[in-house]
Amino acid sequence: MVVGKSEIKVGIVGLGTVGGGTATVLAQNADVIAARATAIRLAAVADIATEKTRAFLDNIGLTDTVLTDNWHDLIDNPDIDIIVETIGGTNLAREVISAALKAGKSVVTANKDLLALHGGELLAIAEEKQTDLFFEAAVAGGIPVVQAVKEGLAGNRFKSIMGIVNGTTNFILTKMSETGEDFADALAEAQRLGYAEADPTSDIEGYDAARKVAILSSMAFNSRVTFDMVACEGITHISKWDMRYADEFGYAIKMLGIARHCGDQDGGYIDARVHPVMIPKNHPLATVRDSYNAVYVEGNAVEKTMFYGRGAGALPTGSAIVGDIIQAARNIVHNCKARWGCTCYLNLPVLPIDEVESKYYVRICVYDTVGVLAALASALTANNISADAVIQKRKIGEDKAEIVLITHKVRHADMMAALKAISDLDCTCEVSDYIRVEEDEN
Amino acid sequence: MVVGKSEIKVGIVGLGTVGGGTATVLAQNADVIAARATAIRLAAVADIATEKTRAFLDNIGLTDTVLTDNWHDLIDNPDIDIIVETIGGTNLAREVISAALKAGKSVVTANKDLLALHGGELLAIAEEKQTDLFFEAAVAGGIPVVQAVKEGLAGNRFKSIMGIVNGTTNFILTKMSETGEDFADALAEAQRLGYAEADPTSDIEGYDAARKVAILSSMAFNSRVTFDMVACEGITHISKWDMRYADEFGYAIKMLGIARHCGDQDGGYIDARVHPVMIPKNHPLATVRDSYNAVYVEGNAVEKTMFYGRGAGALPTGSAIVGDIIQAARNIVHNCKARWGCTCYLNLPVLPIDEVESKYYVRICVYDTVGVLAALASALTANNISADAVIQKRKIGEDKAEIVLITHKVRHADMMAALKAISDLDCTCEVSDYIRVEEDEN
Repeated sequence: MVVGKSEIKVGIVGLGTVGGGTATVLAQNADVIAARATAIRLAAVADIATEKTRAFLDNIGLTDTVLTDNWHDLIDNPDIDIIVETIGGTNLAREVISAALKAGKSVVTANKDLLALHGGELLAIAEEKQTDLFFEAAVAGGIPVVQAVKEGLAGNRFKSIMGIVNGTTNFILTKMSETGEDFADALAEAQRLGYAEADPTSDIEGYDAARKVAILSSMAFNSRVTFDMVACEGITHISKWDMRYADEFGYAIKMLGIARHCGDQDGGYIDARVHPVMIPKNHPLATVRDSYNAVYVEGNAVEKTMFYGRGAGALPTGSAIVGDIIQAARNIVHNCKARWGCTCYLNLPVLPIDEVESKYYVRICVYDTVGVLAALASALTANNISADAVIQKRKIGEDKAEIVLITHKVRHADMMAALKAISDLDCTCEVSDYIRVEEDEN
Repeated sequence: MVVGKSEIKVGIVGLGTVGGGTATVLAQNADVIAARATAIRLAAVADIATEKTRAFLDNIGLTDTVLTDNWHDLIDNPDIDIIVETIGGTNLAREVISAALKAGKSVVTANKDLLALHGGELLAIAEEKQTDLFFEAAVAGGIPVVQAVKEGLAGNRFKSIMGIVNGTTNFILTKMSETGEDFADALAEAQRLGYAEADPTSDIEGYDAARKVAILSSMAFNSRVTFDMVACEGITHISKWDMRYADEFGYAIKMLGIARHCGDQDGGYIDARVHPVMIPKNHPLATVRDSYNAVYVEGNAVEKTMFYGRGAGALPTGSAIVGDIIQAARNIVHNCKARWGCTCYLNLPVLPIDEVESKYYVRICVYDTVGVLAALASALTANNISADAVIQKRKIGEDKAEIVLITHKVRHADMMAALKAISDLDCTCEVSDYIRVEEDEN
């Protein structure tokens, strides 16, 4: 079966959690990998923490793996076929990947931050040098959804992708839903258990998920979407009251990355965003608990499909990277690098968030006076929002009430204008929250 | 990007539901397929129903596609690069695939019956001729799980695969669970809606699922498993009472194909079987409803992952076949056929069903006399089954009671011997049912 080289040599740049997981999988499963594909050896590692790294490599049996604190050594070594970039960040990593591709090496990375900004540039270098740049681990950790979109489902016109692609926020929302905790308590627990970082901004504000949406949209809709094009809204405003109402109305609240192709099938535009969503409890995404990830993909031939698994962690992410290494190794052995690359041959506009239409759940605290419902309805209709929404009213204390309503599909800008008008009403204490509601449309 | 040929030509043998779906996807999505990969054209179709087939092809815009009633015409045509076999069955299909591979063509098939019997033989021909035999559509329809196991997750030692891989039985069990119907009524509804065939034997007895288990086990555990090695038990004995008890105990009843690697990691044996199972309601497989399929895969690096979607239907199956066609086309264009093939390099034994250990739910109808529980317990312990099982007793009428118990893990042979002993007791009216119970073990 082996056409070319008898052993493929890998160099890893950056042996942190993900790099270490990759090294462990390569070491532990070397025999099955060799038997299924071709012999693959971790020949060299570049990392500045040399002493700790040497001990780690020795501990997993990789005593022959060369260690250097200079990543250029790996690029300059003609024996190394595949470079794995696991340092993260967008500066040095960009330099490393660019240099490796220019040296004609195959590159595997988990770096979503970099790809969501400069993926197009790096894939163009790979194309020019007729080599491979693979990034399965950049989206949803161990779940092989990138290859599914690029190959297994490549016969489809993709309609939409909806993903729980951030484990931290899914853990927090699962806790809130199952224990009745408020956001702050659930976040504190996530931090205590290591699911959330000390500075959780990137996760809880949706930036991490937006990077994955950018990468998935680019692949699925054949048009480059970058991080800055994806509208983001975090989960910090979700309260235990929202969780209770969601439950009562038959919904789960999930942080979703959403990407849709809209309009004309030979053109049209892309709708790409990240925000919390109420989805029906019997939707497959609603049952994805704890820190698990899942990506729900709809195509015109395959219909609805979902990919579920671990979105983070040393070994699951290592699994995805090693899957890419195996793919890159097969391409080297069979002399067919650049078998697939960037497919962004279109240049579709991304719909501004103001224009995106959704159903909305809205929770408003009002002074419970005569005419309050009429005043709300009037503010809604003045902003093109049908007043025959689902409305529920609950007394709070002596003189206040909480109004909860679910609208029909409305433009985001209209919804925001209506909420501004409502918050200006004399009868309104506060607009407590709004959350978009997604139903499966077919 | 295109290295070799400028247009890949496909020939389909058998234009029934699946072949027709494939043709439709190729026609409808030709532009995106060409832009993402390479131009692919359905050049010829072989089908005996020539008039109906011509009308179908014309109707989807494939007026240039040559139609013949002689499949040899496609094999003999040197312009045709890829043969799609969608006639089904194990005789003519075997002849067609074998001839196509021997002619050096790439072959794509959805034929699980054939692969579960003669997959090894056909893959050996592909290997010898250094060409491709792809079969994504043979397992779980549109869900790209074959490629995931062969490539994306190939860095893993697989521990287990559990799949809802038969849509008919999942539809029947979902109906029974959600409406309280008995088996016969749910089957009748499935037949009325076209989910079950007039002769539903292959589905409801688990033969169809067993074929998919044979294919998945062979790939995951690198050792050829054929249909005859997979123990099967159908769902005809499941009653609405079992559904009620399952619900009460926190379980869903699902028809699962199960494949496990057991014992020594460098050797060991395979446990492969198909039968109804009670799984906890919060297990991801428990939420897979109606005719949907899902495959739950556990590897030593990726941990738990699940692939969900349509297991049948013209377009979803067509999606999987076209994904394979694209993969085969890329290999032709990049001159790297046989990039991956059969990886059954081991020869592991399959555990006899008698030796398989499971927890069991058992429902027994007894005459409610003094000492009945003691008699049951004694029959259990005499067969190595711990008597501290979960036991529940419910009066039926004047003199009878229904005993429901859930055992610890026991050997199947011991369980069957105990049930025989129990049914021989004077106090037993009948052993009404038994169903294996699976818990997630980590």
